[in-house]
Amino acid sequence: MSKKIVIIGGVAAGPKTACRAKRLLPDAEVTIIDQDSLISYGGCGIPYYVSGDVSDEKELRNTSFHMTRDESFFLNAKGVKVRANTRALAIDRQKKTVAVEDVNTGAKDNVPYDQLVIATGSRPNILPIPGAELDGVFTISDLHKAITIKERIAKGEVSKVVVIGGGAIGIEMAEAFADLWGLETTIIEFMPQLMPRLVDRPFALMLEHHLREHGVAVHTGEGASAIEADATGKACRVITPKRTLEADLVIMAAGVRARSELAAAAGLAVSQMGNIMVNDRLQTSDPNIYAAGDCIEVRNILTGKGTIAPMGSLANREGRIVGDNLAGIPTTYKGWIGSFVMKAFERCIGATGLSLETARAEGFNADAVFTAQSDRAHFFPTQAVIPLRLVFDKTTRRVLGAQGFGPANDAVLARIDAAAAIIANNGTIDDIGQLEMAYAPPFATALDALNAAGNVADNLASGRLRYVSVEDFLGWMDDFASHGDWLALDIRHPNEAEAFVNKYQEKWLSLPYIEIRRRYQELPKDKTMLLICDAGTRSYEIQTFLDGVGYRNTLVLGGGFNIMRRLGVNWWPAS
Amino acid sequence: MSKKIVIIGGVAAGPKTACRAKRLLPDAEVTIIDQDSLISYGGCGIPYYVSGDVSDEKELRNTSFHMTRDESFFLNAKGVKVRANTRALAIDRQKKTVAVEDVNTGAKDNVPYDQLVIATGSRPNILPIPGAELDGVFTISDLHKAITIKERIAKGEVSKVVVIGGGAIGIEMAEAFADLWGLETTIIEFMPQLMPRLVDRPFALMLEHHLREHGVAVHTGEGASAIEADATGKACRVITPKRTLEADLVIMAAGVRARSELAAAAGLAVSQMGNIMVNDRLQTSDPNIYAAGDCIEVRNILTGKGTIAPMGSLANREGRIVGDNLAGIPTTYKGWIGSFVMKAFERCIGATGLSLETARAEGFNADAVFTAQSDRAHFFPTQAVIPLRLVFDKTTRRVLGAQGFGPANDAVLARIDAAAAIIANNGTIDDIGQLEMAYAPPFATALDALNAAGNVADNLASGRLRYVSVEDFLGWMDDFASHGDWLALDIRHPNEAEAFVNKYQEKWLSLPYIEIRRRYQELPKDKTMLLICDAGTRSYEIQTFLDGVGYRNTLVLGGGFNIMRRLGVNWWPAS
Repeated sequence: MSKKIVIIGGVAAGPKTACRAKRLLPDAEVTIIDQDSLISYGGCGIPYYVSGDVSDEKELRNTSFHMTRDESFFLNAKGVKVRANTRALAIDRQKKTVAVEDVNTGAKDNVPYDQLVIATGSRPNILPIPGAELDGVFTISDLHKAITIKERIAKGEVSKVVVIGGGAIGIEMAEAFADLWGLETTIIEFMPQLMPRLVDRPFALMLEHHLREHGVAVHTGEGASAIEADATGKACRVITPKRTLEADLVIMAAGVRARSELAAAAGLAVSQMGNIMVNDRLQTSDPNIYAAGDCIEVRNILTGKGTIAPMGSLANREGRIVGDNLAGIPTTYKGWIGSFVMKAFERCIGATGLSLETARAEGFNADAVFTAQSDRAHFFPTQAVIPLRLVFDKTTRRVLGAQGFGPANDAVLARIDAAAAIIANNGTIDDIGQLEMAYAPPFATALDALNAAGNVADNLASGRLRYVSVEDFLGWMDDFASHGDWLALDIRHPNEAEAFVNKYQEKWLSLPYIEIRRRYQELPKDKTMLLICDAGTRSYEIQTFLDGVGYRNTLVLGGGFNIMRRLGVNWWPAS
Repeated sequence: MSKKIVIIGGVAAGPKTACRAKRLLPDAEVTIIDQDSLISYGGCGIPYYVSGDVSDEKELRNTSFHMTRDESFFLNAKGVKVRANTRALAIDRQKKTVAVEDVNTGAKDNVPYDQLVIATGSRPNILPIPGAELDGVFTISDLHKAITIKERIAKGEVSKVVVIGGGAIGIEMAEAFADLWGLETTIIEFMPQLMPRLVDRPFALMLEHHLREHGVAVHTGEGASAIEADATGKACRVITPKRTLEADLVIMAAGVRARSELAAAAGLAVSQMGNIMVNDRLQTSDPNIYAAGDCIEVRNILTGKGTIAPMGSLANREGRIVGDNLAGIPTTYKGWIGSFVMKAFERCIGATGLSLETARAEGFNADAVFTAQSDRAHFFPTQAVIPLRLVFDKTTRRVLGAQGFGPANDAVLARIDAAAAIIANNGTIDDIGQLEMAYAPPFATALDALNAAGNVADNLASGRLRYVSVEDFLGWMDDFASHGDWLALDIRHPNEAEAFVNKYQEKWLSLPYIEIRRRYQELPKDKTMLLICDAGTRSYEIQTFLDGVGYRNTLVLGGGFNIMRRLGVNWWPAS
């Protein structure tokens, strides 16, 4: 008799598991159960469907060869039976059955299994605030809601949108509303910055500035305290402690949590946070039951800690691993590191591993360098500066993370993926510096921007570079007067420095890079001189020179003004 | 007294060494000697200068902050003395001096050193054929020649160009001539394919087809036997064994060899091929003399063999390492793997590590998979297929190389750089499959194209996938009739298969993917069935299904017709 494999959940991890298992075990009877009518869609594509980049929701459910991944496709093409519109009610581990209910007819039956896979995913957090349940308040959790949102916009029912939550989904949705549809869009984020924990504050600020440039209002450090309805009972405004925002549409994108009720009710081990516990073969506490995707707790390779990692990319990797183990191939999952990339209008932001803030919170002896090199040869017409931050452990030189910000092409992706490969292997900043990245002027610089970041990290770790972080510098500039113990030494061209000298007077010295070896004796020795250039590289050179002539009172601003001009700071002189 | 560091060679490795050493040793007296008037230029940018993408040669010599890297810049900004127009004649290792000559005045003197660095680079090979020395025959070896070439074109003196050599420089120059200037351009390559040894034949063919689409004539397996002159003594035609090509301009891009005469004459160890031998600190056989850049022999990490590796990217890495060692920091060079990327019109080709052909020639038990997945979500408007080949050792599963071909954006770069990071660390195909690459629909697929290649390699290495290589398939198609023991099973949509069925009749079966589980019993068991789909993924699925029902007579065509349609094959049915 053929083995019965039952999979609960029909998006990402579930279908991947099913197809891999069926290929490895052609004789097995593989069944996917899902309570929804739509399955196996690209949920990460929802913002692009809403924006109109993807014209039809079917495209999110299609294969690359233009077939729709519905029940009949899975049966005919994959040999996998799909029971859509079928809710799993309970798992009987003794009898090895799943009690299910047809969501349309209410008919119930029991589905027997030899091996079971739980791929129930996550559900969006609903904030415990008044009005969260109103019509017009949506989470981005399934394709049906996305279709409704797009219909309302297309019908002209929406002119103002408030997005609650400044993570990736909230920002991608904000772009969708503001870019193609031209809706008045506001993001509110409870934490003090966008993309909290994912990126450090300077990256969040560069992103925020760019969103503002494209007309998206952003309020950080500001949560929604209530959503209010109009006379028809539809959501019409969002209240925060600081303001009232009108809204025809409210998106609640405040994170997700694992859907693990079925697993917990069946007595499977579930974490305090509600995540399904699995071993490195993604097996639950019942050896006949596996789990994959957003609902499981997986180990972060860097911290060693278990959390959910709700990403479609990981769900697919995990699905393959479960498929292998169902077929007796002992593939293990090494854990995750946290790679991501996101488009926001004309920019791309990406990261892998830990941010500096997170790394320090996790107890690493962490430091970071900030660079702002070109993505391709500086003489190549399409070149752009891509700010990169490399986070590392000063004791071990191990790379802990990388963050990048650049144009909406693949330049940041290339550096993030390369860094991810090194991080996954416990590589060091020296591995980053020496990594042999491909070079030609249209694609990179002879020493790639990522290599350069590795080399700067080496200079820092070896004690040759003294710097002020962008975070600290911003604080100093916010309150320039009260930090009277320093002054800026602007080594850019005098034309570039002029407006700053005019504004900040004796606190802003201009002495061009090219003249310092000749004129350094004009400089003060009794105050900290903060070296200002565009990328930080000239500043480092000048620091080493001044050190050599006894002026050890300098600090380098990593990434220099290439970073500052991307932040939209209010202390910038009017031009 | 301050240490005297003398560096012979003012492009790439030389300046990098000088600047790094001067930063680490502010008290040292650092001198660069170069026989040319122009130094520290981006030689890899020459094709883009000739094409016009870079309008002024000065841009190739400028820093990213718009200063020209000339003698005064090095002196004032870097504290490095440059003696341009100064030829190094001999090294006296006993006296620790370099005898030099001013190329303009003929004045000679001796430059004393405590430590010497040889960064004399490479010189282009001049083919031993009649006419190689004629006016109008150029190598791409320095900026002066590039300026002359561009001047001649701009004056309208050139309408036909022959490029001898189908490596990266030859192809980049061909694009420069054909694209902006619209010159009639022909590449001849002595070896049977473009970019020999760097990429496998299918990648060379995709590139060749694209060059032809853009009007560049390509003749492979065909060397130049002579260059002939017109009545004025200027080159006017190139003779090959098969044809005579008219040419107002001839580019000789037939590889380079190390400039090592100075080193050899000084008694330093030099290989049979003429490469300067160095240890892993890039020290020559004289501990006071280092060498870096195109002139040295460096170890390939994969083969363990020493060769020259004449790439600007490596020269920069090596320069930093020499700088470290001059300052007493014992940085070592782990060797190179061979990463490169190149633009050709609207395409990018890149590779890292060994090609399949090279890996086998080097004695590895090598095999390779060929995939043709999308670079980004298939529903995202800008998606494109990027053929990838992953080369690995079947015994150890170690990754040996990766090749990619795609649009002229950074999609291929991202995969090549990530693969390079894994190869440099002796990673396996499983590391490729599990690499946590960043994902969002505008940038990648949930399971990245590189991950997918790793997974296909796992299927092959684990004996689950049987395939025919593109190379073999092309041979079969060239002589379809005589390979009577196989037929094509085209599982694409019948509309796609139709023209092939009409042309190849009973040798080309059409049975759509979606119908095979129902209709497989119509298939023959007595002949090899070559499965045909677009990317190879459906074919693999069908192979596993047919295996399960006793039809073990299938082979998968890796990468499928996504590859074939990029090759410009002559057996394609007329549409």
